[in-house]
Amino acid sequence: MTSSSPTNRSGEVTRLPTGIPGFDIIAGGGLPRQRATLVAGTAGSAKTIFATHFLAGGITTAGEAGVFVTFEDAPEDVRRNVVSFGWDIPAWERAGKWTFIDATPDPSEPLTVVGAYDLGALVARIEHAVKRTQATRVVLDSLNALFLQHPDRAMLRSELLRLTTGLKQLGVTLVFTGERTADYGEITRFGIEEFVADNVVILRNVLADERRRRTMEILKFRGAHHERGEVPFTIQDEGIVVIPLTAQELTQTSSTTR
Amino acid sequence: MTSSSPTNRSGEVTRLPTGIPGFDIIAGGGLPRQRATLVAGTAGSAKTIFATHFLAGGITTAGEAGVFVTFEDAPEDVRRNVVSFGWDIPAWERAGKWTFIDATPDPSEPLTVVGAYDLGALVARIEHAVKRTQATRVVLDSLNALFLQHPDRAMLRSELLRLTTGLKQLGVTLVFTGERTADYGEITRFGIEEFVADNVVILRNVLADERRRRTMEILKFRGAHHERGEVPFTIQDEGIVVIPLTAQELTQTSSTTR
Amino acid sequence: MTSSSPTNRSGEVTRLPTGIPGFDIIAGGGLPRQRATLVAGTAGSAKTIFATHFLAGGITTAGEAGVFVTFEDAPEDVRRNVVSFGWDIPAWERAGKWTFIDATPDPSEPLTVVGAYDLGALVARIEHAVKRTQATRVVLDSLNALFLQHPDRAMLRSELLRLTTGLKQLGVTLVFTGERTADYGEITRFGIEEFVADNVVILRNVLADERRRRTMEILKFRGAHHERGEVPFTIQDEGIVVIPLTAQELTQTSSTTR
Amino acid sequence: MTSSSPTNRSGEVTRLPTGIPGFDIIAGGGLPRQRATLVAGTAGSAKTIFATHFLAGGITTAGEAGVFVTFEDAPEDVRRNVVSFGWDIPAWERAGKWTFIDATPDPSEPLTVVGAYDLGALVARIEHAVKRTQATRVVLDSLNALFLQHPDRAMLRSELLRLTTGLKQLGVTLVFTGERTADYGEITRFGIEEFVADNVVILRNVLADERRRRTMEILKFRGAHHERGEVPFTIQDEGIVVIPLTAQELTQTSSTTR
Amino acid sequence: MTSSSPTNRSGEVTRLPTGIPGFDIIAGGGLPRQRATLVAGTAGSAKTIFATHFLAGGITTAGEAGVFVTFEDAPEDVRRNVVSFGWDIPAWERAGKWTFIDATPDPSEPLTVVGAYDLGALVARIEHAVKRTQATRVVLDSLNALFLQHPDRAMLRSELLRLTTGLKQLGVTLVFTGERTADYGEITRFGIEEFVADNVVILRNVLADERRRRTMEILKFRGAHHERGEVPFTIQDEGIVVIPLTAQELTQTSSTTR
Amino acid sequence: MTSSSPTNRSGEVTRLPTGIPGFDIIAGGGLPRQRATLVAGTAGSAKTIFATHFLAGGITTAGEAGVFVTFEDAPEDVRRNVVSFGWDIPAWERAGKWTFIDATPDPSEPLTVVGAYDLGALVARIEHAVKRTQATRVVLDSLNALFLQHPDRAMLRSELLRLTTGLKQLGVTLVFTGERTADYGEITRFGIEEFVADNVVILRNVLADERRRRTMEILKFRGAHHERGEVPFTIQDEGIVVIPLTAQELTQTSSTTR
Ligand SMILES: Nc1ncnc2c1ncn2[C@@H]1O[C@H](COP(=O)(O)OP(=O)(O)OP(=O)(O)O)[C@@H](O)[C@H]1O
Ligand SMILES: Nc1ncnc2c1ncn2[C@@H]1O[C@H](COP(=O)(O)OP(=O)(O)OP(=O)(O)O)[C@@H](O)[C@H]1O
Ligand SMILES: Nc1ncnc2c1ncn2[C@@H]1O[C@H](COP(=O)(O)OP(=O)(O)OP(=O)(O)O)[C@@H](O)[C@H]1O
Ligand SMILES: Nc1ncnc2c1ncn2[C@@H]1O[C@H](COP(=O)(O)OP(=O)(O)OP(=O)(O)O)[C@@H](O)[C@H]1O
Ligand SMILES: Nc1ncnc2c1ncn2[C@@H]1O[C@H](COP(=O)(O)OP(=O)(O)OP(=O)(O)O)[C@@H](O)[C@H]1O
Ligand SMILES: Nc1ncnc2c1ncn2[C@@H]1O[C@H](COP(=O)(O)OP(=O)(O)OP(=O)(O)O)[C@@H](O)[C@H]1O
Ligand SMILES: [Mg+2]
Ligand SMILES: [Mg+2]
Ligand SMILES: [Mg+2]
Ligand SMILES: [Mg+2]
Ligand SMILES: [Mg+2]
Ligand SMILES: [Mg+2]
Repeated sequence: MTSSSPTNRSGEVTRLPTGIPGFDIIAGGGLPRQRATLVAGTAGSAKTIFATHFLAGGITTAGEAGVFVTFEDAPEDVRRNVVSFGWDIPAWERAGKWTFIDATPDPSEPLTVVGAYDLGALVARIEHAVKRTQATRVVLDSLNALFLQHPDRAMLRSELLRLTTGLKQLGVTLVFTGERTADYGEITRFGIEEFVADNVVILRNVLADERRRRTMEILKFRGAHHERGEVPFTIQDEGIVVIPLTAQELTQTSSTTR
Repeated sequence: MTSSSPTNRSGEVTRLPTGIPGFDIIAGGGLPRQRATLVAGTAGSAKTIFATHFLAGGITTAGEAGVFVTFEDAPEDVRRNVVSFGWDIPAWERAGKWTFIDATPDPSEPLTVVGAYDLGALVARIEHAVKRTQATRVVLDSLNALFLQHPDRAMLRSELLRLTTGLKQLGVTLVFTGERTADYGEITRFGIEEFVADNVVILRNVLADERRRRTMEILKFRGAHHERGEVPFTIQDEGIVVIPLTAQELTQTSSTTR
Repeated sequence: MTSSSPTNRSGEVTRLPTGIPGFDIIAGGGLPRQRATLVAGTAGSAKTIFATHFLAGGITTAGEAGVFVTFEDAPEDVRRNVVSFGWDIPAWERAGKWTFIDATPDPSEPLTVVGAYDLGALVARIEHAVKRTQATRVVLDSLNALFLQHPDRAMLRSELLRLTTGLKQLGVTLVFTGERTADYGEITRFGIEEFVADNVVILRNVLADERRRRTMEILKFRGAHHERGEVPFTIQDEGIVVIPLTAQELTQTSSTTR
Repeated sequence: MTSSSPTNRSGEVTRLPTGIPGFDIIAGGGLPRQRATLVAGTAGSAKTIFATHFLAGGITTAGEAGVFVTFEDAPEDVRRNVVSFGWDIPAWERAGKWTFIDATPDPSEPLTVVGAYDLGALVARIEHAVKRTQATRVVLDSLNALFLQHPDRAMLRSELLRLTTGLKQLGVTLVFTGERTADYGEITRFGIEEFVADNVVILRNVLADERRRRTMEILKFRGAHHERGEVPFTIQDEGIVVIPLTAQELTQTSSTTR
Repeated sequence: MTSSSPTNRSGEVTRLPTGIPGFDIIAGGGLPRQRATLVAGTAGSAKTIFATHFLAGGITTAGEAGVFVTFEDAPEDVRRNVVSFGWDIPAWERAGKWTFIDATPDPSEPLTVVGAYDLGALVARIEHAVKRTQATRVVLDSLNALFLQHPDRAMLRSELLRLTTGLKQLGVTLVFTGERTADYGEITRFGIEEFVADNVVILRNVLADERRRRTMEILKFRGAHHERGEVPFTIQDEGIVVIPLTAQELTQTSSTTR
Repeated sequence: MTSSSPTNRSGEVTRLPTGIPGFDIIAGGGLPRQRATLVAGTAGSAKTIFATHFLAGGITTAGEAGVFVTFEDAPEDVRRNVVSFGWDIPAWERAGKWTFIDATPDPSEPLTVVGAYDLGALVARIEHAVKRTQATRVVLDSLNALFLQHPDRAMLRSELLRLTTGLKQLGVTLVFTGERTADYGEITRFGIEEFVADNVVILRNVLADERRRRTMEILKFRGAHHERGEVPFTIQDEGIVVIPLTAQELTQTSSTTR
């Protein structure tokens, strides 16, 4: 049993260090391995940066390959958006470490009939990429575009479960993003994804007194310990930096003792 | 009439000690026997841990067998998630004390037609497991996945009543979990389960000032006394630990008198 | 004209003492006779205990027979739930003072088609029981299960009016329970029952600062005086005990003077 | 031009004194003549008492006959409910001063098909009664039962306008009651009646600190002056008594000067 | 280019003084010419008085003729309602300065089929009246009755745009009233009229501490300056009087300096 | 690679200075080039002025041509509304710097069938104008009128993505406006546009204490830095002027130090 096994000797859930500074501390070592994590947030809350950083972290810290499935942003846009963080996706793609699966609709094609989206074909494409590159991390960004096609909540839930179950069976650790329309209140638009997901991370971009503050919260990790409550994070030159409260307190203490 | 009868000599409702530390104190001895208890909470509020602890408690404290019906989590995931609590489900399964009924959808099968779910077959599978293992406790986790298939509330209510009535007739004590999308406000998504259930326990994971606190509340026990209001609980090395207010006060007193 | 007439010599509405301690004080003598009273409350707010106490009070204080129509709770469960209050329903049944009408769905039968519920047959069964036992009190607990079958509000209102009108014509005093999903705000789920009912009693189970408090309020008595506002009540060894504010004030005064 | 003309010499709207103590003061003399007034309130807010008092006031202070159309309460119940106010409706009926039009559904008849209600027939019945008794006041209590049959808001609005226009053409002053589900907020359930009515009176039964207070507010009188804001009222031995603020201030002053 | 041109020499939007005291001050001279202004408010907020005053002001201060399209109030009622303001509409009608277009439904006719309302015929009637009387001002009171007939928001928006575009092409300045169900919050019921209208004026009748206060706000004037925020107004013997804040401040100053 | 390339040498997103005073400061240089920016606000929040200023800024500061697609406002109205800002659109049109695409419905034509709007034809018209005038900036004002035609959210999202993707492929920088019905809360009516757009700018017209204040906020710029939180702005003689907080602080400092 290697460290990449989903359980340790006693059968417990093991962790996959994300490589996102500070996150692995509040996460008790990293994301639960071979599980599905929902990263939920409002527009601009850094969902895509988190997901990208998760793959980038795998590549730069552990040499693990990743697959990025994009449903609306063009791969070219994703590449460009993270250049300033020093992430050279094109180089990683050439090295077989990063694979884009472009699930954006083809603008020249007629509109897909509602409900007709072929999820099986998507899973097959992902499986193929995972096997070809021996990827251990998969990102789906974002599912909402896909799921708007299911007006029926039962179908939506059922489909989401099929998708996450199918991908977990490939042995990968899955991050999928989900949209929120408010920073507090209901976790997701349909109240479904947070129950189907094994883990939930919430990104907030809170407006108070005309200022914005970013916070991150691990809402749940099934079967695993984690720090609870909101912690601040920032987007810096190298991507996301989470500031664990213990770190804050240390800082405060030191700055108090000065 | 034995202690496992649903009524005592005078015909009153009797209790089934759950084995969850602290809970049996606030519950006046345990869950009302041979009744259906809804355990409702938001995502990550510890519904599955509560339900699992209920079966584990039966096994370890009274040698009572239990049946765990899972609608979305794979049995393998449930097993793994509680390893750290020292609960060896595989060993219990081998000993005939724990039976999983895997009611998760088969990802390779086509989507179930809405409304076509065969509840009768499910009850029969449960009945078979109960009789085979002489189980006294049954868990259904979680019903929402199932009930999303009934867009019609009248049908949903009717089906839920058939299900709980049918299972109570087997002589078992039933715990079923239900999802909430907020920690305060409406008890359940459809406003139905809390009225059909004989008993309601609410698990809360309250966010205030960027911190989370867990509380448990017995909202109702039909025909039975219980402590009222919210009490704190934690998830510790051996599972759930409820801190009854009396205990708190004692602690406070003692720490005050010190 | 006897005291059981719905009007006194001058034609005014007369009262039926319920036998619920304290309630008859705030009610100005009791429930208006031969009228329909809605008892509305959230899950666990004591609706069924109130309704049961109403029949038990009739039997023990005035020897009046009653009919209890149950739509979801099995009669056996209702019997068991009130044993601790010293109410021996089985003995009353044998004495012809208490009649159950079991309107719960038969779990072995197929689901009733929506809208097909035969209200006329139900009224006939009630009429038969009333005539046979010369019952003066009828309880319907709870109507929501029944009315969920009418997705159309106009039908629902119309049916409810037919039902209450039909039963009032039998000369009985009617109590029917209704579900609320919050302790404050809209009186009922559909905003209909409180307008059709002649009288409305609200049972609240208020959560504040993690504690629960029970209060009762007579919202309306058509054509009759009553105390207004919320008064506390408790569930004690002999059932419901309402604490009228005058009583409270007396207590306060005496304890203040002490 | 007599005082019962809808306009005075200069063509202005004239008033019909209601006979409700205090109301005519805040109303600037009474209700605008030959107009339609909506009296809106929650369950138990005294809508029916107001409407009844309006007819009773016409009979006792001006000898004017009235017509009371009841859609859900049996006429017998209405008669009984106001006995305690000293209003002898049966005597007024015999004297041709009070006419009931019983528009309650016949419980033995099948349910009216939705939308099929024959409003024309109702207007004809009212017209006949008005002409026979030379009634000047008409009450419709309450329209909601009727209008629930129109799920379509456009139809509902259109029908309500036809009804009020048709009745105003008979030369009568019309009071119709409407249901609210909360004491503050939206004026009516559908947001339609308050715009179609010429005048709106709101009856509130406000819950604050577990107490209830009754207030009345004239929200609008088209083309006529009135006092604005909420004033308290009570239900006393002779019916409704409104306490105009000027009166309150006088009282306060005198009690202050004492 | 005369002063009645919609643009001045430089092509800017010009103003049409309404003649409503105080309003033209906060409006920067008057309503933008040949544009469509929505006047939105709750029931009784003075929408009809504002619209009527707009036409009356045109007649008395500038001799400009106006057309008043009424959708629910009978013309006779509108005439009567403003007598007390000294506005002699019948005289103005005889002088060809005021034209009513009675768009109220004929109570003797069957209900208009939903969606079948012939907007083209209405525009033609208005055009005819405008041309015949050389009217420069047109009022539509209120559109909601009309638009309830379009359950489809896209149609509603499209129809409203056709209507306002069509009328603006006649060279008239248009005021149309719209209903609100609350004094704060969403501007209109459907969230459409305020976007289609060139200008929006909000009339509020605010309830606070059981008192009502009237305020007026110019929410937007496309392409034109105006004072912003709420200003108080009253209904006095000569109609609406707006109290610009500058005036208030002057008063305050003078009263302070006294 | 010129400065008009969407990426700089390192592949990062580059900026297009808008020419709106102050905005380019909080935007870190301007709008991300060749991306789609949603400008969202309530009625009268200055969306159209912002969009117009964006094109005007391109013309006056960089000689870049622009295309303005209007869905409801007549081009003539748009021209007139900005005269007072000194923007001579007719002159720019003659110089080939400004092109209107009039996508307003033709009032003489029958209503477009819902869903039948030919988006492809619209894109073609825009493409033609862009190529003919070598435009680099395109404005769509406002999309809501168009999108109301899609009652189905999945279609709406899909269509919006096709539209923005199609236009970005022309190499232009796109600004499209979107309606909000409240200044705080959900970003857009359907909760879709803010997720599809690459960038979101919110214009607020906040009512507090009866006064209005305008603020602007850059909610998100995918892949690019920007100032966060609300900053005040005003509409002045030359259009929009944004007051960056740094500027405010400088002012405050200087005025404090004075
Ligand atoms: N071994 C553990 N040690 C500490 N905490 C744990 C452990 N396992 C679980 N938890 C805590 O319990 C939470 C999950 O509990 P559980 O799975 O019972 O929630 P749930 O209410 O069933 O959620 P869902 O609705 O998503 O199924 C985790 O988010 C974590 O905070
Ligand atoms: N014997 C008892 N002793 C003390 N309290 C009791 C007893 N029986 C019931 N209760 C209290 O009464 C509550 C249930 O009351 P009841 O069954 O009348 O509620 P209800 O309003 O009918 O609820 P539901 O809507 O779920 O039917 C219990 O939750 C418990 O708190
Ligand atoms: N004789 C009376 N003496 C004192 N109060 C009375 C009397 N009759 C009625 N009331 C009061 O008036 C209330 C009922 O008034 P009314 O029936 O007019 O209400 P309503 O608004 O018509 O209600 P609903 O919508 O249920 O028809 C009662 O709840 C009671 O509080
Ligand atoms: N002659 C008057 N003197 C004083 N106040 C008056 C007079 N006429 C009307 N009012 C006031 O104006 C209010 C009605 O104004 P108006 O009819 O313009 O309202 P509205 O907004 O058009 O209402 P609706 O939506 O019901 O048509 C009345 O409620 C009253 O308070
Ligand atoms: N020339 C001007 N001088 C001063 N303020 C102006 C001028 N033109 C417009 N305004 C202000 O700008 C507001 C309108 O701005 P604009 O038309 O851009 O709003 P919008 O957000 O596009 O509104 P809508 O959704 O109704 O189209 C006006 O209400 C006014 O307050
Ligand atoms: N290079 C950067 N430097 C600084 N901040 C950046 C940078 N790139 C992005 N950001 C910040 O991150 C935000 C966007 O993050 P991201 O695209 O991950 O959001 P998202 O949650 O995926 O949003 P959406 O739902 O719209 O896809 C931007 O609005 C910006 O504030
Ligand atoms: Mg994203
Ligand atoms: Mg769970
Ligand atoms: Mg009950
Ligand atoms: Mg009534
Ligand atoms: Mg009006
Ligand atoms: Mg605009």
